[in-house]
Amino acid sequence: MKCLVTGGAGFIGSHVVDRLLARGDEVIAYDNLSTGQRGFLETASKSDRFRLVEADTLDADALVKAMAGVELVFHLAANADVRFGTEHPRRDLEQNTIATFNVLEAMREHGVKRLAFASTGSIYGDAVVIPTPEDAPFPVQTSLYGASKLACEGMIQAYSEGFGLNACIFRFVSILGERYSHGHVFDFYRSLLANPNQLTVLGDGKQRKSYLYVHDCIDAMLVALKTPAEPRARVLNLGTPEYCEVNQSIGWITGHLGLTPELRYTGGDRGWIGDSPFIFLQTARIRSLGWAPKLTIREGIIQTLEYLRHNHWLLENRA
Amino acid sequence: MKCLVTGGAGFIGSHVVDRLLARGDEVIAYDNLSTGQRGFLETASKSDRFRLVEADTLDADALVKAMAGVELVFHLAANADVRFGTEHPRRDLEQNTIATFNVLEAMREHGVKRLAFASTGSIYGDAVVIPTPEDAPFPVQTSLYGASKLACEGMIQAYSEGFGLNACIFRFVSILGERYSHGHVFDFYRSLLANPNQLTVLGDGKQRKSYLYVHDCIDAMLVALKTPAEPRARVLNLGTPEYCEVNQSIGWITGHLGLTPELRYTGGDRGWIGDSPFIFLQTARIRSLGWAPKLTIREGIIQTLEYLRHNHWLLENRA
Repeated sequence: MKCLVTGGAGFIGSHVVDRLLARGDEVIAYDNLSTGQRGFLETASKSDRFRLVEADTLDADALVKAMAGVELVFHLAANADVRFGTEHPRRDLEQNTIATFNVLEAMREHGVKRLAFASTGSIYGDAVVIPTPEDAPFPVQTSLYGASKLACEGMIQAYSEGFGLNACIFRFVSILGERYSHGHVFDFYRSLLANPNQLTVLGDGKQRKSYLYVHDCIDAMLVALKTPAEPRARVLNLGTPEYCEVNQSIGWITGHLGLTPELRYTGGDRGWIGDSPFIFLQTARIRSLGWAPKLTIREGIIQTLEYLRHNHWLLENRA
Repeated sequence: MKCLVTGGAGFIGSHVVDRLLARGDEVIAYDNLSTGQRGFLETASKSDRFRLVEADTLDADALVKAMAGVELVFHLAANADVRFGTEHPRRDLEQNTIATFNVLEAMREHGVKRLAFASTGSIYGDAVVIPTPEDAPFPVQTSLYGASKLACEGMIQAYSEGFGLNACIFRFVSILGERYSHGHVFDFYRSLLANPNQLTVLGDGKQRKSYLYVHDCIDAMLVALKTPAEPRARVLNLGTPEYCEVNQSIGWITGHLGLTPELRYTGGDRGWIGDSPFIFLQTARIRSLGWAPKLTIREGIIQTLEYLRHNHWLLENRA
């Protein structure tokens, strides 16, 4: 099958590329390399079934061109950082909402019918039901990131209804693992490298969050894509059946690194504007398809630390 | 108070303009006159507290300029037709989603904190709970129009959380009344003028819909805006505590006009792609603020017919 992976040089995307190549697919990675890394595609590049298209999802013409002959799209390219939305509101609109519209139009142009989309648990805002199911009470958005992913989900659903698109919308918790290059483990690790004796923690450290190991995440997507097509866009939460406190994950990180830094809290129950103090998703729907995660949150964090320890180039590479 | 009404020359917007002027406000109508009518602003134009800015909501600079000194925004400009989304998907993205982003950014630029936004009951897709409350199960979008309004709601909510915007999001059923210039009563009336003996009905005529009279709608918005500010965006359904079948409303229309046309149904349970066969909103939230509609659906339809009968210029004016 010929697949196109937007954000194919990114953290999750490059793993998807590798997994699709491993199962024999032809794969196009579509990436503007703004945060994606050529280094992540080292193995992929050795395959003659692989091609990198270095272009932006805002370039509608390039997307249409790349989409020729494609059967399945993984749309993973995004402004994926939930934390800085209020500093540049236009970024979420452009890189998430408008970019997704461009992907949908390029697919329509070529009659491409299958789509896997990376959405987010942030879409539930401050969820009133926890663990939060896919049909939770209509949420109120608290972040521009969540709002932009909500916009994408809505368009994908309307395209499914209007144009017969067969889409899977995956609402991820935070993803961890090899090639992980932004988020709290990354920030803590880099900060501890610079100063092992002190660590600044956003909020009060009592935020409860969920994390999922990247290969568990991809397993789940591939399982869902294998189950028979549905009339409309299917929505699936992806996460572990557990959560942890930020303080707990700090304990695992510093314990693994053999450090005992002094912790300094910025205070408040949120790490940033629009931060949700408790994210924990109900995953009965994806589990009913036979999927279960292999790693716990703690194991995912350790795996991530080991990866970062052997890949300091990535720390230096990021602003 | 200085108010800006986007879509201020439109069906609902021009009534809002008149009502705000009547209560003593200074009012700017912001309208590109693509569907808005100068004729609707005849009375308003006589006030020295009124000004029309003829510009597009996609013109971000013009919006910023018009927003100077404004205290309250009614954002009503939109591609308001739910029926033709699949014919031009870009229109909903641009005129609804991107236009709303422009409004929010213009407000932020000038520190304007109060917003009333016209959303839609179409946002509930094929609702699983009817009458549908504001916190109904997280819906799946069925129309590009609904999807674009969902995108707008999400952004407004995120701006409320991130920038302290105080917003009321109103989810309208279909609105009827004077200056009504698109929708089923309009279409049926024009069709019956051309041929009183035959009427084509989209779908099977058994779709159940709700309608609200335009002055009841505006009463509700003004009541909601008077109640104390909330920390986040408030969402309020607006509708009557009743619904009717399309066939029932045809009976009222033809009865009022003294006609007995042969009815020809296009068939199927939906009038168009993404049409919802049953729209009926729970309005306990707005009613708890002391509001109740004055006209029934039937009375609203008759009022609309009487208006159209005396304003045939409007029928000829529209493609």
